[in-house]
Amino acid sequence: MGESSANGSPTSADAAGRALAARVADIAPFQVARVFERARQLERAGRRIVHWELGEPDFPSAPTVVAAGKAALDAGRTGYTETLGLPVLRQAIAERYPAAVDAGRVAVTTGASAALNLLAQTLIDPGDDVLLADPGYPCNQGFVRAAGGVPKRVPVDARTAFRLTLPALRAAWTPRTRVVLLASPANPTGALLAANEIRAIVEFAAAAGAVVVMDEIYQGLVYDERDPDPFARTALGLDDRVFVVNSFSKYFGMTGWRLGWLVAPPWAMDAIDRCAQNLYLAPPTVSQHAALAALEPPALAVHEARRRVLARRRDVFLRGMDALALPVAHRPQGAFYIYADISATGLPAQAFCGRLLEEFGVAAAPGTDFGSHRAEAHVRFAFTVDEADIRRGLERLGAACRAMIGSPR
Amino acid sequence: MGESSANGSPTSADAAGRALAARVADIAPFQVARVFERARQLERAGRRIVHWELGEPDFPSAPTVVAAGKAALDAGRTGYTETLGLPVLRQAIAERYPAAVDAGRVAVTTGASAALNLLAQTLIDPGDDVLLADPGYPCNQGFVRAAGGVPKRVPVDARTAFRLTLPALRAAWTPRTRVVLLASPANPTGALLAANEIRAIVEFAAAAGAVVVMDEIYQGLVYDERDPDPFARTALGLDDRVFVVNSFSKYFGMTGWRLGWLVAPPWAMDAIDRCAQNLYLAPPTVSQHAALAALEPPALAVHEARRRVLARRRDVFLRGMDALALPVAHRPQGAFYIYADISATGLPAQAFCGRLLEEFGVAAAPGTDFGSHRAEAHVRFAFTVDEADIRRGLERLGAACRAMIGSPR
Repeated sequence: MGESSANGSPTSADAAGRALAARVADIAPFQVARVFERARQLERAGRRIVHWELGEPDFPSAPTVVAAGKAALDAGRTGYTETLGLPVLRQAIAERYPAAVDAGRVAVTTGASAALNLLAQTLIDPGDDVLLADPGYPCNQGFVRAAGGVPKRVPVDARTAFRLTLPALRAAWTPRTRVVLLASPANPTGALLAANEIRAIVEFAAAAGAVVVMDEIYQGLVYDERDPDPFARTALGLDDRVFVVNSFSKYFGMTGWRLGWLVAPPWAMDAIDRCAQNLYLAPPTVSQHAALAALEPPALAVHEARRRVLARRRDVFLRGMDALALPVAHRPQGAFYIYADISATGLPAQAFCGRLLEEFGVAAAPGTDFGSHRAEAHVRFAFTVDEADIRRGLERLGAACRAMIGSPR
Repeated sequence: MGESSANGSPTSADAAGRALAARVADIAPFQVARVFERARQLERAGRRIVHWELGEPDFPSAPTVVAAGKAALDAGRTGYTETLGLPVLRQAIAERYPAAVDAGRVAVTTGASAALNLLAQTLIDPGDDVLLADPGYPCNQGFVRAAGGVPKRVPVDARTAFRLTLPALRAAWTPRTRVVLLASPANPTGALLAANEIRAIVEFAAAAGAVVVMDEIYQGLVYDERDPDPFARTALGLDDRVFVVNSFSKYFGMTGWRLGWLVAPPWAMDAIDRCAQNLYLAPPTVSQHAALAALEPPALAVHEARRRVLARRRDVFLRGMDALALPVAHRPQGAFYIYADISATGLPAQAFCGRLLEEFGVAAAPGTDFGSHRAEAHVRFAFTVDEADIRRGLERLGAACRAMIGSPR
């Protein structure tokens, strides 16, 4: 894409200067996308790269999910569905929550991306403050800005196990705070919020006239419980000012199908429906039919087996990090990321990731993709590759650390 | 969805009053969605309804498109693709334009909906004026408002064959006009813009520092030429301030797959890429593999045959309307809609559509879905059903007209 720079020829730069919206300047590209692109270049040149940069597991969708997609195609399901999704899918999702909700409160969306965007458009006025954790999922700021809101990043770190706490929220609260965005399990740290912490935040926000959007995209991917119900850990039902966002991408292994959902209080559904009609028309049809299978026992057994595989990978990864004496900023209880503190190398995160990739063949995401609070001191490693690649990566990471900071203590 | 009203219990209404964004009040629901829902109710009660309300042809996707989707699933293509789409698909689209464009200028999007939203987010600052035709595609106002822009509807009617003309644009121009949104073929009228008209508008807009977004979603669906090249009628290449939006939904018969594209000038691609990363991550993977087949000769032969079917349906429909002496506001040269003037019935559009459905079993879209300029006097009939249903609908429409305005003259 040699043409794709915003600063091309002088004429183009003039045109861009006149024609691009101001918000564009605030939208940072994902550095991880550049890391991935460079990793692919190196692979094409014959290098063997360990991919720890991507938030996408190496599993294909479960066989019954794929079969359901094909069956939908055979049945000619190629037209639009209802804007908020197939009624049978909304019902299937609604029924799986511990305290079943009315299916009318469920909106099936084109990935959690669409759910987050719809909530931003429905809840945020220009100039509203939205509180969110730093570090956190980078696109959240994009959704807030697209709606004219102001993302206010609240620093979280090891002192609170990377949890966004009520005291930190209180300290960051402004008269313009309209929305609090929580995530559990959280990206990039794998941190979990306890039920009582969420409840306290929801009560505080509700009393202050704000709403809480709970990102449960990694719901079900928790590792310190035996046989967890993938729908058990939810903020749903705490208050009629709580919105829940979820995805078929992570636990259900359906990234490329682009399907997620939200559950909203009844008073917001009509507005969400109208926004979805205008901005999306409907989510992808074949994906919805496939998702029905993702919620059934045969696929759930596959997902549960994969969760166990991920749990073992996490343990291998953490033991390896301990052996390298490279500090893990937070031992993840969920999601599939290790957030590592690389400050001992003396290199800022992007430079560290650059050397790690170029010299040692390991791709990782710099902390600067996820915020600014001590971001230069951190790197995110995704355990979305198999154990052999995790061990291979750990060896290379060890060599990198020896080269950058001397032998491990 | 008994819960989904914005005005539920007093508590909910309070919550809604405090928590919903102001823009929500400006986003009207599609009345056609309500017409469709009521039509389905009547069908479940045993009535036989003629569906002239929906902008979705009755054809399933072409067999080779469905086969390509299934093959992609068999090959395990269930992960994310690049944010701007599979390189091979961007290339395939780029090559099909009469003057081939660089594939780096093509972004594959989650339906034309995503293309329009990305351009709104990339080009519109809060308070900017966006000029667009009234009547026109209803969601366009939603995209403009989502970006904080102000949709300025420019009335078009039979005096200019429903074309948005340069004099009308000049008259509506303000110092804050930043974007002109054109469509050809246009929804709901099927009007085409001539190449020299588009050129004049582009030159005027560029000189005034604005950009032109050209909606070519119905490109290829034109009926007064023999064997048209589906990519021939395009504004692409006129100026480096022209953006083109397109879709696999209409000519290519892939509505439910949610896939479209845009072609932008090189200076805007980096900004579009960053917006797309944040707001969408990537378009649906299986849909992209299927779309590759939609551009190949076997599927193109199917699409061309369907265009001929639609052309014949249009002619049957227009002859029927002539026989009923019900004025066609504009004889459509493209798309698949008849925009009818129902003012002789003395009923406003919504009331007319209500009686037409309840008493005569024909579903149609009221003009008020598409704007405000003489909208109450118009109704949109979609010839997306087969000839038998068109004839059946025409008989019923005749009976309705006799009941409402007496015998046809």
